[in-house]
Amino acid sequence: MAKEIKELTPRSENYSQWYQDLVTKADLAESSAVRGCMVIKPYGYAIWEKMQQELDRRFKETGHVNAYFPLFIPKSYLSREADHVEGFAKECAVVTHYRLKNAPDGSGVIVDPEAKLEEELIVRPTSETIIWSTYKDWIQSYRDLPILCNQWANVVRWEMRTRLFLRTAEFLWQEGHTAHATEEEAVEEARKMLGVYADFTENVLAVPVVCGVKSETERFAGAIDTYTIEALMQDGKALQSGTSHFLGQNFAKAFDVQFLNKEGKREYVWATSWGVSTRLMGALIMSHSDDNGLVLPPSLAPLQVVVVPIYKTDENLKEITEKVVPILEECRKRGISIKFDDNNNKKPGWKFAEYELKGVPVRLALGARDLEQGTVEVARRDTLTKETVSIEGICDHIEQLLKDIQKNIYQKALDYRKANTRTVETYEEFKAEIEKGGFILAHWDGTAETEARIKEETKATIRCVPLDGDLTPGVCMVTGKPSKCRVLFARAY
Amino acid sequence: MAKEIKELTPRSENYSQWYQDLVTKADLAESSAVRGCMVIKPYGYAIWEKMQQELDRRFKETGHVNAYFPLFIPKSYLSREADHVEGFAKECAVVTHYRLKNAPDGSGVIVDPEAKLEEELIVRPTSETIIWSTYKDWIQSYRDLPILCNQWANVVRWEMRTRLFLRTAEFLWQEGHTAHATEEEAVEEARKMLGVYADFTENVLAVPVVCGVKSETERFAGAIDTYTIEALMQDGKALQSGTSHFLGQNFAKAFDVQFLNKEGKREYVWATSWGVSTRLMGALIMSHSDDNGLVLPPSLAPLQVVVVPIYKTDENLKEITEKVVPILEECRKRGISIKFDDNNNKKPGWKFAEYELKGVPVRLALGARDLEQGTVEVARRDTLTKETVSIEGICDHIEQLLKDIQKNIYQKALDYRKANTRTVETYEEFKAEIEKGGFILAHWDGTAETEARIKEETKATIRCVPLDGDLTPGVCMVTGKPSKCRVLFARAY
Repeated sequence: MAKEIKELTPRSENYSQWYQDLVTKADLAESSAVRGCMVIKPYGYAIWEKMQQELDRRFKETGHVNAYFPLFIPKSYLSREADHVEGFAKECAVVTHYRLKNAPDGSGVIVDPEAKLEEELIVRPTSETIIWSTYKDWIQSYRDLPILCNQWANVVRWEMRTRLFLRTAEFLWQEGHTAHATEEEAVEEARKMLGVYADFTENVLAVPVVCGVKSETERFAGAIDTYTIEALMQDGKALQSGTSHFLGQNFAKAFDVQFLNKEGKREYVWATSWGVSTRLMGALIMSHSDDNGLVLPPSLAPLQVVVVPIYKTDENLKEITEKVVPILEECRKRGISIKFDDNNNKKPGWKFAEYELKGVPVRLALGARDLEQGTVEVARRDTLTKETVSIEGICDHIEQLLKDIQKNIYQKALDYRKANTRTVETYEEFKAEIEKGGFILAHWDGTAETEARIKEETKATIRCVPLDGDLTPGVCMVTGKPSKCRVLFARAY
Repeated sequence: MAKEIKELTPRSENYSQWYQDLVTKADLAESSAVRGCMVIKPYGYAIWEKMQQELDRRFKETGHVNAYFPLFIPKSYLSREADHVEGFAKECAVVTHYRLKNAPDGSGVIVDPEAKLEEELIVRPTSETIIWSTYKDWIQSYRDLPILCNQWANVVRWEMRTRLFLRTAEFLWQEGHTAHATEEEAVEEARKMLGVYADFTENVLAVPVVCGVKSETERFAGAIDTYTIEALMQDGKALQSGTSHFLGQNFAKAFDVQFLNKEGKREYVWATSWGVSTRLMGALIMSHSDDNGLVLPPSLAPLQVVVVPIYKTDENLKEITEKVVPILEECRKRGISIKFDDNNNKKPGWKFAEYELKGVPVRLALGARDLEQGTVEVARRDTLTKETVSIEGICDHIEQLLKDIQKNIYQKALDYRKANTRTVETYEEFKAEIEKGGFILAHWDGTAETEARIKEETKATIRCVPLDGDLTPGVCMVTGKPSKCRVLFARAY
């Protein structure tokens, strides 16, 4: 029962359907029986695990430790910080009972009305409140600071319209929550972690990002400042890929977390929080992949190299295998993940398509003629090009190729972003340009009213005020009022 | 503000209080604001992370892959397998609403009565039902089998009496869920994973375990057979440390998961599931630790070696530091986790007590006399003994010592278990012996009635029928009816 080659809807035809096709056909994730919740399939999870490892190492190198806080948050905790509850109340899954029982009519199980919780529990949409209620007991003096904790966890935000990886009711993420003695230190931490995210996204995901700060409207609920990394997807839409928040003393005040400073005075503690999620899987997919399937950077590919034998007889296969085994061994010794696919039930053409769909960066093919000539065919997933090279020194070649591919797909995404980042002066220009997709740099008067009007009229939002942007003042493209600097607009996921 | 040395209640005085003191004072975990849910603190989480790494490696080496399934389970799914719902209904956290709103009287936020879910969702107590509803779409033919998935996740069982790590409403665990074409293969998988658990527990946690099969009464809800590893704690109580279930075709039938076998016939799929949890932290603590604090096997110690300088002047400290730096470098090169604690705010005595409390396996101390004589004082946490050794070759010494400590604490726990495993013939003997704690091997007639009577009268339960136990038949100590073999009894956590 040979499975058919899984074709994807072309991007040019329907980008959104292409994405959906790719995520499901490449075995990354699928929808579950629970509305808005996804199943992350083994292949998708293997990529996520690689992301986790790279992030976790970076967190530890910058002095952070992991911990784990409860899944549930008492309802009253959420209300302690006014902006916070305002931001999250509309999407909270609420636990009200703790027991089921058999229905008296024998029709199955029902919620036991006698097992009602005294106070309802929220399934965490984010953990600031439960964590700051805990930090209260951990912090007495400046000697207890800073606290630099991270948590790998699942969170739930009851979204009405969901999309695999990009917006799901439950998602996986990490959330860092730090406590500091001074404002300066907390701001520095928030910015440092944005830098860690940018480094990770650019060097591991091969996705270029713009680092910036959010407008007040787009801030995290409860933050003083939200820093963001913004990536541009192939369809010209922006994807917020990670955020780091300077929370000021908001949560310390809400949970009365004070410390004795060096001068013996009581002060409220300063806070940050920062997170990235399985949404990064969406950023990865929509930055590099094509109509044939996934394109994975070698740094995240669960399988980096596949070897496909082209043979007619068992004797052929045996000869090929003899050539391949030393290559497998040498590659593995170098830490390269490589597989020899000698499955007899599938034809080479099927295998080529399957590994393209799965985004395996390098494919080797060996046939009878290669054996005679001492060569091997090497195909690159990123450029879809092939070359025939000598089997001598093939491992060096592969090693170099993996590095080249990592660089190339980053460069390609960067070139695309550069070609699709435009500067406009007038609102007319803006309205025309935004239809083409991409990032647009324009002047804005800094008011929420103008921002709302732009969003209403063009569906574009302010992605951020770039941290390394042009700081020349100007006049707002909409109102003509003064503008401190250009800000980055786009339509966004 | 020097913190006071944290004393623990002695074990002989109150074992349960000793455990509670140790878990909180050694910074492993603490209770949270949410009833029954714990906060796993960074030091405790670092140990759990090491357990995870060791387990995850073993799972992958035995061909398993990780995936992630939803946190929520539709209420109706739980009811599909009759025994399963019977077993879990009484402890389910139930999500009934998906939104909060401001109370009309301005008193805060309330659950929005209009945001009621059509079908209530259970927070997963275990994931068989949601996973088998997913596997239905993954399995058509024998070619799709086996499926060997594992998931690292949080689960919730609404327990009335909770204890840190041992029994908490939310806990962290891994759950393997496999699907097979034949009964033999599934049974083999369930037994294989029990073997993986036993290997891990004995060689990493240094906790000896008895491998066995549960009596029908103690089986997992929905299983045909439950295999278990049972450890004996220092207070003579047993702790079930991991279980592996042969589920037969129960869940395949409940979710109608069939496959076409090689002969082209439709058959129900065979299943296993297996899990270990943060409960292992409890097994670790109660197997090795003492009245001074934690005793950690080097394989799980986040910090394996600490170096404490004994000095009066800055000049002394400088000289000691010069001696210590090469030791740190060499140890780290060898993969040993080592820290030089030159914190000036704490006295050596405080540090000694603190690192004992935290279970750091090896402590080095260096003072002026050591500098003169080229020696260093080496203290072992497991035996609380000290020796003065030459600073030459100290890294070799440490490396060997870490291995010795790992072996010694395992041997100590094994000796304790041997000394506390007794064979009895009569029920009178049994009742007397059970009061002393420990494992008791006795004949039982195989009926749930006798098992219940024993539990009622002695609080002892059948921990398992040991897999490598004495298979000589006999007569039940209670009823005098025939018994196939001796089974293992204990009072248990």
